[in-house]
Amino acid sequence: MHTGFARTPEPPYYAVIFTSRRTEGDDGYAAMADAMFELALQQPGCLGAESARGADGIGITVSYFTDERSVAEWKQNASHLVAQRLGKERWYEHYELRIAKVERAYSGPEGRL
Amino acid sequence: MHTGFARTPEPPYYAVIFTSRRTEGDDGYAAMADAMFELALQQPGCLGAESARGADGIGITVSYFTDERSVAEWKQNASHLVAQRLGKERWYEHYELRIAKVERAYSGPEGRL
Repeated sequence: MHTGFARTPEPPYYAVIFTSRRTEGDDGYAAMADAMFELALQQPGCLGAESARGADGIGITVSYFTDERSVAEWKQNASHLVAQRLGKERWYEHYELRIAKVERAYSGPEGRL
Repeated sequence: MHTGFARTPEPPYYAVIFTSRRTEGDDGYAAMADAMFELALQQPGCLGAESARGADGIGITVSYFTDERSVAEWKQNASHLVAQRLGKERWYEHYELRIAKVERAYSGPEGRL
């Protein structure tokens, strides 16, 4: 999977914050997670994504979109709908999904803070 | 460190999304990160926080606050200012900080999606 920082433009734009706890075992998860990460990046309006999962099974993926419409279109993407269904059935013990409008952004250590 | 899900109320509220890549070595980082996580939770207006760091060194911490004023107060907290300075000097190769207003939220798999 691509890891690193999303190169987002000046705000405003949208962030989809997905926090999850995985079930045990892979059960097809890693391959689908990689595929969805790449597919999201190709989605019109997607500005990038960032992802981390620790040894405790808690993971956070934040994907960034130009606007609410792009967020809605990604949610309805056919392959993503399949992944969402499998996620509910198999892969996630629990998750929280939050849609947020980014108002300000800073980079560092050399940045604007 | 506490890990798990933040028990946030119905939106709107604010999310501070901090994505970072660590420098090598601990150099006091883990102890400070734990202390700041706990201190943030005690900050007036803090609703909770979620954190994950993968083996590649990329970490995401999202802390949630009732409003912009609480976010600003946490930024100016004296101990947090010390941690921010050390973070810039020692611990972070790079970071992105985004302040976002959470507009919608869902839980699962049993939730409202």
